[in-house]
Amino acid sequence: MNISVLYQNIASEMNRVDEELKRLVAVEHPVMTEAASHLLMAGGKRLRPAFVLMGGQFFPNPKANLVPLAAAIELVHMASLVHDDVIDCSATRRGVPTVKARWGNRISMQTGDYLFAKALILISGYQDVRIVRILADVSVKMVEGEIQQLLTAYDTQQSVKDYLDRIRRKTALLISTSFQLGAIANGAPEESVKALVRYGYYLGMAFQITDDILDLTSTEEVLGKAVGSDLTQGILTLPVIYALREERGSALKELIERLQGGEAVIQEALQEVYQSSGIERARGFVERYIAKAQRELEKLPDRPAKRTLGSLAEFINVREY
Amino acid sequence: MNISVLYQNIASEMNRVDEELKRLVAVEHPVMTEAASHLLMAGGKRLRPAFVLMGGQFFPNPKANLVPLAAAIELVHMASLVHDDVIDCSATRRGVPTVKARWGNRISMQTGDYLFAKALILISGYQDVRIVRILADVSVKMVEGEIQQLLTAYDTQQSVKDYLDRIRRKTALLISTSFQLGAIANGAPEESVKALVRYGYYLGMAFQITDDILDLTSTEEVLGKAVGSDLTQGILTLPVIYALREERGSALKELIERLQGGEAVIQEALQEVYQSSGIERARGFVERYIAKAQRELEKLPDRPAKRTLGSLAEFINVREY
Repeated sequence: MNISVLYQNIASEMNRVDEELKRLVAVEHPVMTEAASHLLMAGGKRLRPAFVLMGGQFFPNPKANLVPLAAAIELVHMASLVHDDVIDCSATRRGVPTVKARWGNRISMQTGDYLFAKALILISGYQDVRIVRILADVSVKMVEGEIQQLLTAYDTQQSVKDYLDRIRRKTALLISTSFQLGAIANGAPEESVKALVRYGYYLGMAFQITDDILDLTSTEEVLGKAVGSDLTQGILTLPVIYALREERGSALKELIERLQGGEAVIQEALQEVYQSSGIERARGFVERYIAKAQRELEKLPDRPAKRTLGSLAEFINVREY
Repeated sequence: MNISVLYQNIASEMNRVDEELKRLVAVEHPVMTEAASHLLMAGGKRLRPAFVLMGGQFFPNPKANLVPLAAAIELVHMASLVHDDVIDCSATRRGVPTVKARWGNRISMQTGDYLFAKALILISGYQDVRIVRILADVSVKMVEGEIQQLLTAYDTQQSVKDYLDRIRRKTALLISTSFQLGAIANGAPEESVKALVRYGYYLGMAFQITDDILDLTSTEEVLGKAVGSDLTQGILTLPVIYALREERGSALKELIERLQGGEAVIQEALQEVYQSSGIERARGFVERYIAKAQRELEKLPDRPAKRTLGSLAEFINVREY
């Protein structure tokens, strides 16, 4: 299957989302436009706006316009990506900093703030403070997830629960929220909103674990960055956490401690992970989350969107990029 | 006169604002609590929450509770202060970076995002999307002001208009918004809201210009930082812009260019500014803005708050710290 199936029933609205995003990012300050456009033009899959629209498709409401809401969610996501570009100056210790790393911290930060504020302007167009509240709550959680990631860097004692809690906040909640907001903006009944929230949550968990696996198993060409970049930054993902628990875990632990000290032992550390069952066990999590996501769909009315979301969950399960 | 007059009729509400702020900042992540608390405990004057409450006092409304709104405005202000701590790594070129500068960029950024999201949660408690819209608009402008400040650093060609436009966005609009939100949350009539918006704007402009003058004329002891810190960072304020226009302006221009190159010529540059009429001309602006602020008060109903705001404007005009 192909990811494009996701967009087949929402193509015209997705075009309008793109128009809206281009309009919002084309601001009077070229320096921010540049910082934001590389994200916009790189395109991404615009998954979250598609999720907002899909969330609405179970309960079509001709009076509601989901396009600004979908664009707002993408802006919130972009803001968090731009903020991820902000680095600590110590991060340059291990090599020559890029121009962006040297000069761009304040620009990245302001651009993220700007995109978030623009999202709020779109949201305030809906006469519904619930939407503001939901977005504020997810924003708090996303920050908590990021902080948790900073605090647990290189921490070989962290648990599977720590990891799952972190990716829930960092990734799964915004995906879940996307479906939720599309549904409530169209006036969907409470039971269906709940099913979509849970579907989105399980999908988001599967999505992030898959991402974390691919960071280890894919190629530099496909990823657009070095294999093992999470581990290089001290971000210990599910396969690594499981690898640490095995018999040879102490060797991996030692390598991670040396990574923290700045030593170039990443290839050795990766080999330890590959030789463990960590990746296999992480794949097991993906399968279980996908199965849970599929079960939530059963609670939703029979609409074309239902089959699309089923295919989407299947796609996450098998994707190799 | 003493600044405490501002708080005399709102003391109990201000205490509740403080309680609310302490509750919100005491989060589960000590690292953020620390980053936010130094601001909270340093105290500041809590001017913006006081402005929200004052804005409400012209049209008392026992049904409205302005405390969460006042706390939200302070959180937005704090978020922008914490984000100001994010530096470009190049900023450490001229000396040994502080611990905070080295390690704290990402923490500062996340803390700011967190405080802003918490402000949104408070705001969403009011069933009024106008408040969200106003806050989103002012947030966009504040970012534009910050970006403008980054872009005009060391730019000796910038105009008085550039400066005024920058401080309007950076400072005056949030102060103006504070009065506005207090008034509209209490259901004040349109005409009075407008007068308070303008009063707040003029007051905010006078406030920032005064701040910029004091950065040049006060002492390190009073400021808590070196005299001339704006100029040291390449931020050219009104007195400097006027000094550049005088006969000896070319000497100052050259010194500023050398500052940009990293030379320690700040004392010489300051002497040039002191010998110019720049500070005097900037004081003229403060007086005119204060006079305009006072005129707006005439349009407001006769309440004790009116006299307080009159004293406040007077206080800005004469303050020496």
